[in-house]
This record gives sequence, structure tokens and C-alpha cells, in this order.
Amino acid sequence: MIKIGIIGATGYAGGELVRILHAHKNAEIIWYGSKSYIDQKYSHVFRNLFQVIEDICLDDKIEELASKVDVIFTATPQGYLASLLSEEIISRVKIIDLSADYRMKDVSVYEKWYGIEHKSPQFIEEAVYGLCEVNREEIKKARLVANPGCYTTCSILTILPLLKEGLIRPESIIVDAKSGTSGAGRGAKTETLFCEVNENIKAYGVTSHRHTPEIEEQLGYAAGQEIIINFTPHLVPMNRGILVTAYADLKENTDLETIRAAYKKHYQNESFIRLLDQGICPETKWVEGSNYVDINVIKDERTNRVIMMGAIDNLMKGAAGQAVQNMNLMFGQEEREGLDLIPMFP
Amino acid sequence: MIKIGIIGATGYAGGELVRILHAHKNAEIIWYGSKSYIDQKYSHVFRNLFQVIEDICLDDKIEELASKVDVIFTATPQGYLASLLSEEIISRVKIIDLSADYRMKDVSVYEKWYGIEHKSPQFIEEAVYGLCEVNREEIKKARLVANPGCYTTCSILTILPLLKEGLIRPESIIVDAKSGTSGAGRGAKTETLFCEVNENIKAYGVTSHRHTPEIEEQLGYAAGQEIIINFTPHLVPMNRGILVTAYADLKENTDLETIRAAYKKHYQNESFIRLLDQGICPETKWVEGSNYVDINVIKDERTNRVIMMGAIDNLMKGAAGQAVQNMNLMFGQEEREGLDLIPMFP
Amino acid sequence: MIKIGIIGATGYAGGELVRILHAHKNAEIIWYGSKSYIDQKYSHVFRNLFQVIEDICLDDKIEELASKVDVIFTATPQGYLASLLSEEIISRVKIIDLSADYRMKDVSVYEKWYGIEHKSPQFIEEAVYGLCEVNREEIKKARLVANPGCYTTCSILTILPLLKEGLIRPESIIVDAKSGTSGAGRGAKTETLFCEVNENIKAYGVTSHRHTPEIEEQLGYAAGQEIIINFTPHLVPMNRGILVTAYADLKENTDLETIRAAYKKHYQNESFIRLLDQGICPETKWVEGSNYVDINVIKDERTNRVIMMGAIDNLMKGAAGQAVQNMNLMFGQEEREGLDLIPMFP
Amino acid sequence: MIKIGIIGATGYAGGELVRILHAHKNAEIIWYGSKSYIDQKYSHVFRNLFQVIEDICLDDKIEELASKVDVIFTATPQGYLASLLSEEIISRVKIIDLSADYRMKDVSVYEKWYGIEHKSPQFIEEAVYGLCEVNREEIKKARLVANPGCYTTCSILTILPLLKEGLIRPESIIVDAKSGTSGAGRGAKTETLFCEVNENIKAYGVTSHRHTPEIEEQLGYAAGQEIIINFTPHLVPMNRGILVTAYADLKENTDLETIRAAYKKHYQNESFIRLLDQGICPETKWVEGSNYVDINVIKDERTNRVIMMGAIDNLMKGAAGQAVQNMNLMFGQEEREGLDLIPMFP
Repeated sequence: MIKIGIIGATGYAGGELVRILHAHKNAEIIWYGSKSYIDQKYSHVFRNLFQVIEDICLDDKIEELASKVDVIFTATPQGYLASLLSEEIISRVKIIDLSADYRMKDVSVYEKWYGIEHKSPQFIEEAVYGLCEVNREEIKKARLVANPGCYTTCSILTILPLLKEGLIRPESIIVDAKSGTSGAGRGAKTETLFCEVNENIKAYGVTSHRHTPEIEEQLGYAAGQEIIINFTPHLVPMNRGILVTAYADLKENTDLETIRAAYKKHYQNESFIRLLDQGICPETKWVEGSNYVDINVIKDERTNRVIMMGAIDNLMKGAAGQAVQNMNLMFGQEEREGLDLIPMFP
Repeated sequence: MIKIGIIGATGYAGGELVRILHAHKNAEIIWYGSKSYIDQKYSHVFRNLFQVIEDICLDDKIEELASKVDVIFTATPQGYLASLLSEEIISRVKIIDLSADYRMKDVSVYEKWYGIEHKSPQFIEEAVYGLCEVNREEIKKARLVANPGCYTTCSILTILPLLKEGLIRPESIIVDAKSGTSGAGRGAKTETLFCEVNENIKAYGVTSHRHTPEIEEQLGYAAGQEIIINFTPHLVPMNRGILVTAYADLKENTDLETIRAAYKKHYQNESFIRLLDQGICPETKWVEGSNYVDINVIKDERTNRVIMMGAIDNLMKGAAGQAVQNMNLMFGQEEREGLDLIPMFP
Repeated sequence: MIKIGIIGATGYAGGELVRILHAHKNAEIIWYGSKSYIDQKYSHVFRNLFQVIEDICLDDKIEELASKVDVIFTATPQGYLASLLSEEIISRVKIIDLSADYRMKDVSVYEKWYGIEHKSPQFIEEAVYGLCEVNREEIKKARLVANPGCYTTCSILTILPLLKEGLIRPESIIVDAKSGTSGAGRGAKTETLFCEVNENIKAYGVTSHRHTPEIEEQLGYAAGQEIIINFTPHLVPMNRGILVTAYADLKENTDLETIRAAYKKHYQNESFIRLLDQGICPETKWVEGSNYVDINVIKDERTNRVIMMGAIDNLMKGAAGQAVQNMNLMFGQEEREGLDLIPMFP
Repeated sequence: MIKIGIIGATGYAGGELVRILHAHKNAEIIWYGSKSYIDQKYSHVFRNLFQVIEDICLDDKIEELASKVDVIFTATPQGYLASLLSEEIISRVKIIDLSADYRMKDVSVYEKWYGIEHKSPQFIEEAVYGLCEVNREEIKKARLVANPGCYTTCSILTILPLLKEGLIRPESIIVDAKSGTSGAGRGAKTETLFCEVNENIKAYGVTSHRHTPEIEEQLGYAAGQEIIINFTPHLVPMNRGILVTAYADLKENTDLETIRAAYKKHYQNESFIRLLDQGICPETKWVEGSNYVDINVIKDERTNRVIMMGAIDNLMKGAAGQAVQNMNLMFGQEEREGLDLIPMFP
């Protein structure tokens, strides 16, 4: 039984971790960390878990926690884990960090985009970027996994095969992304009130969203060169789901069969990635509640561009689902354990 | 392995049956019946099941099906099963009918409220009303189970303990119910278009909704007398969920403790029914995607009425979930098998 | 030109006042009061008004304001106006209060249900309850109008004719109400975040909602006797709209024609009240953005109850629209001026 | 009084025409044409208009209509008007066509993208493309106005100034558009059912949407050269609103001031176009129910691209609002008459 502690258990990603892990055969949550709800029943925070989880919320004492569990999930604000992590902790417990603290290798990029000083840059080198389909073997051996962002997971997986196969011009990549509102978290803000989001759509963080450099770094590894992209997120009146619509120029007039072959080559053994039938556009509803990534690509013969589309559930493959997938890899579990969930429709 | 055939597999309830049964340890769907989609891949109808279900849709040949499977689920329009059922079929296969054909014992009530002639009234007597928490033992032995309606399941379970314990005046019962739109089915109708339902709420079928006599019959058994109620359904702009707000006069000035004790007495061993903590009102979101029924009751000291509230997922406990629960009972399975699903939040 | 000041201009009701009054032929807003946004452009708070309103938000100085305008609208928290109102102010300016401070004649009822001490009970007697269809003549002469609550407006107008005509048993009245989320205001709270409201419905404030005594007082005047009701509000995933479904026992077996005649008698000259055709249930979408109240009644022959239904836009007839209607009456304007708005569909 | 006939009055755009025109000072609808609802009350189709419109629906007899009215609005399927239009009709009545029949000057482009033969290409030359901000003077003199598509209106107005000023590379334009569901019409289709659209987002018509050539033709006029773009529409779970996010490479490293100056130059006298303050992203909710176009542009210093954003209400500026704006121009009315509507928020 893998013993688990969650720090930040009462946010949406934390709640999703609990939903998944409760059904995991070989895992057991023994620490529901939440500074805001200490000593309150966890199921009073998430009442869907009434009579399912009887535990109470505990303080976020990472050092104490490190001696009690096998793995800690940190679903905490940026900078939190970086400010606490020490060799002593990481030598005793594996950590899967859902924040951005260890996602980027260049600490100056992190500090610039996030506007905070990194307090433990010495662990950046060691941290493994937890995009399972890309770094599976490294993840298996990791002590510290940086769980990717929601937009980034969807963007990278949607674009990677064509970039890696050299079919598209890297400097032409534009990512137009659309997200459900749970990505904005459970904190009370006017801009995420029901009446502000419902019957509305907008772009936000245009040219400045923090997931941009994360996407660029990972795509850069795939391309073997520095990549700069446009990334534009949008807020959609729905709870869950991210849809990425990405554009790029083809280098040559590659035919669709060759384009699709690139996806098949990279993803044919990936059980969570579904390359849809030709011409079918991904819909976020088809992956809701699951760890799937639905992908497709359409070629525009008139402009010689590809439109690459990907859909995930932002709380699953975009956060908690991928985190559990990482845990499974790190602990020698079957990769789908706890994640063999069928999307809920409608 | 229980071999299963579904007739009407391409409606919302059919799709939910597939979602549940795919994860059932001891069951296997071998017939996806759908007149409208014969020879098409089932996952082309419900693309959330892409690469999960590879089967194609078959014709609705109940006689052929009866010799191939152990149980048939009929998620079909009213009158369909009644027009086909024969002793030969029912002697070879168990049937769980999600339509209303065998729910009411008085055929004239059925014919009046549904406006159609019943073609096989000879099976009404035998049919067991598949409300598991009420008729568990009968269901175990049944050949033919009439799976309850969505509104009825929620209404009956919400009211039953107080009625059975004689605490409320039967003639005072008023049920004001609110349902998500999946209850209206997947057929294309103007009134269930997105733009007609979204940003809107209305009552419908006032005094005439077909679930009324079904609720009345079952509550009548509980009360040991004929019951006539007011039942008013409303259409809510959400996909899933039914909330019942029921009102009744207390016979005496019973205290809340006694009132809650009635619920505990009847439901304390029911793993799908959750009596919420005092003062907590059920929310449909807390049961979404699960087979739970969340219930609570509040006493109004000023009017000496009780407000009884219940919430279910209409496609789960209100349809497919309860149908699988019935199957589990009929085939000696653990009652929660396949149904141990945690509600999805948010 | 009626000169107008709004205190609390940056809440949803305040914004709706501005939307209406901007198109009013004989009114002009000269003071946009908002403590939270002093010195900021009003159109930065409500960007729908960009290039429409160029004014900036001012402090809530009611005494200064009283000397500058003809009428003040207070869309402020409970207790705010009561704590400031003085004879000096009210002698110089008319006030339309959208809070509950002067709605109820019995100060002890106010203090009990709202849990605050009333600081200026001396004005309660004078204040006119601003339900235009009921108190039109008194409103015309009033200095201080207590603008009714949203639920109360809809509930009272839906029930009043049958009560006044003595057709229903007062003690049998049950009001089951459903509201869009704008009624909860623009303050940032977790429970009104998009993800908490969307795909969800719940009752709240059961037996304890503050609009209960307000409904009871007004219905009591209509019935000529004290009235105690059950009132249960629900939160619906939509921005605007209130639907009331009210139940009552008929005293006699009155026929539907007589029942409808009661509504016609009371409302035939009311241009904002629409008695729908027989059998048509009101939908909130049909009144969205307008000052209409759509009403209908259905008789249940089996239980001898009536189901009375009413729909309003909670920000219009339930708040700002009615407030302007009151202003029109108080200042000798045509009652529909500024309010002749066609509902927006879809 | 301008006498008006509407053919196709019972679709969403038709309903919106009625909503607007009812409040127009100098216009009067005397013919509500609707093949599907002949002899039924118009307010039975759109019940928001109960007691507002008392007329009944008439057959679509364009010849009879031509002799009775001053202008006909055709909100009809593609090919309908083209199949009926004759010199006799057009010599007697002005026509504003909300379909695509006369939008494109090259009939072969129309026939290719719409897949139907054009039955009256002789009127294409004469027809004026009714984008008021671009063709105002021609519209004033037109007999036949082709009212632009919803996506096209928003896309063109968002991009045009930078293209006309030669600041962006025409071949780099990518338009990623998001639309509410009313754009799909009121016909009953499974794919626009509430449960299919709600909690979901998808792209559709990728590389093949019919508004593509219309955008290209108009942008081509602005650029003085042939333009080929990528256009990707998405379906958003909301009733109204289109948001366009358009991308293009800057030719030079133009500064933001110069970029914004291009918008100001072209739109400074346009009362329906609002160039938002620097850094503010348009939201569809801010224009809902109004004829406004909210636009802004952000420069990405890293990629030297501009992200141009525009928001409209698809039924207003994207259909009925613009149609009335055209009528006002054609009949010498004040351009804002009937359209001086403040967006509704929330």
C-alpha cells in the first residue's frame, strides 16, 4: 500500500486526487493537508465525499508528513514547495508537485514569468518533468516530479509529434486554448463568480500567461531548438475541460497520411492518447472525468497549415490524473491503475 | 460472466448503462441494440467510448437476443417491451425494463396516464418494481423487473420513511421536483435545444406528469392507503441531476430527532442512501455520476410541516445505476459491484 | 429632468438601474455612489457601459447627495440606510430603498429575521411598500419607498388574486421558488463561484429565508388575516430569473374559469403583468431583461389544489425595474417610461 | 413609417428583428412570414412577445409582400431568396437578405462553398455587402443589401484596420472564432441539444466553414490583394456572442501606439465600434443584446505578432442589429435608431 499525503487537499485538484486515489487498489491517503480547514472533516469541504472519506483536514507540516508517507502531492500555490523543500525531506519521501516550482530548468525564466524568487533552485536540475508520455523512464526513477500544467499538457501532446518529426515550422506555432473554469481554482474572486463567467467568453493573459514558457521549453526539447510561440488562453462557461486549437505551417506539402502517421508513431502505444478518426474534431465532453487526451489534426490544403486539436479534462490529465499516472510510474504500479475511468457523457 | 444485451443502447440511459457495465467485474455486454444506428460503431454514437467499446450496433431482435444473453435491459419507449414480451422470452432470459410498461399494477392507470393500450398485461402481476431499497428480496427472485422512473425514485425514497412511520398526513404531500435536461432524452426537439433550456427554468406537465401515479402507487404501499399527491416537475439548465423538494404536514408536533430517526431506521443499512447532517441541504452536484441518493429533512416549527429533500443523478440512481443495482441483486452479485463510483465534483 | 443619485451603484442591481435609467427620457443619474470604487470610472466596473457612461464612482455621502438630487436609490446592505436616514434628509429628497430596511411594519419581525437592530424605526410607519400593482396611489405620494424583495415581488403577485378573492385556504400556501444567481450579488463568495453553481441545483435558507416574513405581511393584508407560509428558495444555474411555483388548497371546488377570473379582475389593467393563456407555464426566459411578470394557474382536479406560477427577471421587476416603476409613480411620469423593454430571447 | 415584411420571422434572427423593430420609432412590421407556423400567433412561437405582438404568421409570398411593404428582410436558408428574386420584385421593394445568397461577388465561390447552384446571379453585381462601417454610402443607395454573416462581421471589423494600413502580412492571418449556440439556429438537431452543447467545447467546420470565403473577399478589398486565411469556428455553451481571436505577423516592428492608431483612424466616428482601453480583452457579455463591436489588439513583442480580438452579439451586430442598421441607412434614418441598446449585464 502506497501511503500518500496531500498538501493542498481542499482545492479542486486536491479534491480530484482524492476522488481518484480512493479507488486506487494499492494506495491510501493518510494525510489531507489544508491550512484553511484544519480539524474540519474533509467531507465538509467536498460534500460529494460524505460517508466516503471520514478523515479530517490536517495542517501542512511537510517535515512531519515526510516521515509518515511514501509520496506527497503538493497542490499548492507557486513558491510554496520551493520555500520548504530540503534534502532531508526529499531523501525520505517522493514528491509530486502540481505547482510550477520545478517545471522549468532555467530558474530565471521561472522568476521572470512568475514574479517570485525561487527559494530552492538546487532541486531544479534533479526534478523530472512529469509528462508521462514523454519522460516515462525518467519519471520511474525520480524523487521529485514536476507535474505539468493543464494548458501545457494539452498543448505539448497536441503538437509534439509534428514538431519532433520536423514536419512543421517551429516559429509558426500558435496555440489558441480554451479552458473550463475549474482551472481558476476554488478561491473566491469576483471574476470567477457564476454570473461573470456564465453566458460569456473572453481571452485573458494574452502574451503573458505563465504556461507559455513551460510549453516552449518542452517543445524546444522536441524540436531540438529554441521555440517561441503565441499562446492565448480563453475562459469558457463550463466546469471542466481544455481544448487546444494549434496552428502551424507545414514545411513541405506533406500529405495528411504522413501527418497522421507522425501521431501514430509517437502515440500508438499510449493508452491515454486517442488519435481520433480522420475529420473528427475533439470535444472536451468526450474526455470529461477521464485521463484521456483526444487529438486530431486537419490539413488546410489552401494555406498549407495544419490545425492540431487536443482535448483533456483539466483536473484529470491536466492535474490530478496525470499526477496519479506519475505516481504509478514512480512506484512500479500498472500505469492505468486508478485511472481506467470512462468519460462521463453527457 | 453475466451476458448482457441492451435494447435502446444509444439513448442517454443506454450510454450510461454501457459506462457502468464496462467496469463491472462480472458482466459483459454482447449486444448493443439500436434500431437507428444498425451496423454503425457504437463509439461513433457516443464518442466518449472511442477505443473503449469496439462493438457495432445491432438490430433490436428480442427473441434472438433472449437465447444469447442472461439479461436484457430495455431502455426503450413506453409500450415497446409490452408489445413484444412473451412467456417464451421471459422463460429464457431475465429482463430489466427501464420503460414504464410494468411499473404499475393497475393496467387501467397505465393506459390512462400513458394513453396507450397495454399489449401484455399478463406479465404485470409478476413484474417486480425495482426500487432496490424497498423490494430487495423480491428483486432477487424476479424474472422481470420494472426499473423505476427517475423522478419517482427520488420522490419515493425522500418521502417514504416519514410516511411509513405514520408521521405525516398522506393527503398533504406535495412534490416539487427539478430535473436536468438529460431526462428528456437524446431525441432532437426544439424545446430541449441548448438555447431554449439555457438561462431558463420552467415547470411542465403540471398535474399531468406520468410519474405521478407511479409515485402514488408506491407511497400508497408504504402508507397502507391510497395516496394522491401533487407532483410538479421543472426543467433546469443542467445535464444531470434531480432534486426533489417535498412538503407534508406533520400529524403531531414531532421533534426533529424523531423525524430523523425515521430516516435512520429505514436507511441505516443502505449504502447508496446518505442522510445528510442536520441542516445540510442536498445538492445534485454532490451525487453526480454516482448511484447515491442524498436526503435530508427540515422541520418548520412555524407551520408544523416538514420539507423533505432528495437528490440523485437521474441517469444513475434514476435509471442506469439502479438498473445495474437490480441486475446485481438478480444475479447474486455484490450490490455495489460496478456502482462504487465517487461523485464527480465540480 | 429628475436628478438621480444611486448609493451602491456597483452591485448587480445598481448596474441594472443604470442600464434602465440611461434610456429614461426624463431622468439623469448624477451620482454613482460606490464605496469600493471611489474615483474609478463606473464603466471600469461594468464594462458593458464603456463609452456609454463616462462618470466616476463617488463616495456614499447621503447628506451631500440629498441636496443635489431629487431621488436617491439605495442598493445597499441591510441596515445601511436605516443607520443614516434622518428627517433632514427625507425632507429634502425622495428615497427608494432596495434593501429590506423599511419593508416590514413590525420592527421586531425585521430585527428577528435580519438579526440586526433597526436604527431608525421612526420612518417605518411612513415608508410605503413599493409593490406598484398593490400600492400605486400611496407610492405616488411617498417620500420613502421600500422596494420589495425579488422573491417577494414574484410570490405576492402570483398568489394575491386568489387570496384576495378568498378562493384559497391561507394556511395551505406553500411557495417553492427558484432563482438565478445574480440574486446572490456580486460579492466574491466560494458558494457562488461558477464551478459551484453550474450543473447544480439546491435549496437553501429552508424555513429561514428573510423574504418569508415580507411575503407573509403582504399576503396578510390581502387576506385580512395573519398568514404563515412555507417558503423554500432554490439556486438555479442561470444568471437572471425567478420562478415561483406556489401551492394552495382551494376552499371550494372552484372551476378554472372562476380562478382565472380572479387574476383578470386584479391585473387586467396592469401592463407589466401578463396572465398567460390557459395551460401555458411561465418560463423565466420569456421575461428576461424586462419588467414583466408572467403568471398562470393550473387547477389539480384530483387534489383540489391550485398550482400558481409566476416568473420575473429578478434584477428588473425583482429589483431595479420595480424601483424605476416606483420612481415614475412618485414623480408623475408615465409608469412604463424607461421600462418598455421587450424580453430578450434566447 | 417604414413598412416592413419579414420572411423567416420565426428563427432566432427573425425573433431578434422583431425585438428591435418593435421599438423603432419609424418602422412597423406588417408581415410576419413563416412557412412553418402559418396562421399561428407569432407570440405563440416566441412567447417573450406575448401581449406585445398580436399578429399571426403569414405565408412567405414574396411577390404579394413586395407590393405591401417598403422593405423585406429575408432570414431564410441559403438559396431561398436567390430562387425567387426577380427584377419585378426588386423594382418595387428594398431587400435586406440575411442569407449568404448575395454576399460574394464570384458566383463560383458561392456555388463551391455552399454546394448549391445560384438561381439569380444577375443580381449579385448590384447587391451591396451590408457591412455598414465599410460600405455606408453604397448601402444608402442600395436596393438589395447582403447582410454579412455573424462570424464574418466580427472577423472583418477586428482585422480590417491593420490590413488596410498595411501593418500586417496578409498571408499570416489566422482567425480562431468562438460562437454561442443561437448561431446554429432553432431547428431541432441532436448536436445542438442542451446536453450535447452544455459543459462542452469543440471546433467544427475546420478549413471548410462557409464564412471563410466571405471574410477573405472582404479582407481582400481592404488589402488590395487576394487573401487566404485560416478560419476555425468553435461552439461555446452560451446562447449569444461571438469572440474572434485573430493572429497576424507584423510586417515591421510597429509599436503598439501606431497599431492602436490604425483602429482609431478607421473607427473613431463609428458609434457601434468600441476600441477598448489598452490591455483590456473583449468579453462577449459586455456586448450582449446590443449592436456594439468591442475590439482590442495586443502586440506580442516576442513573436512580433498581433493578437486582434473582437466581440459581438451574433444575433445583433451579427445578424438582426446590423440588418436594421442597414435599413436605417437605406431609408435615411438616424443610423442608431432602434439600436441604441445598452448591453445587458450580467
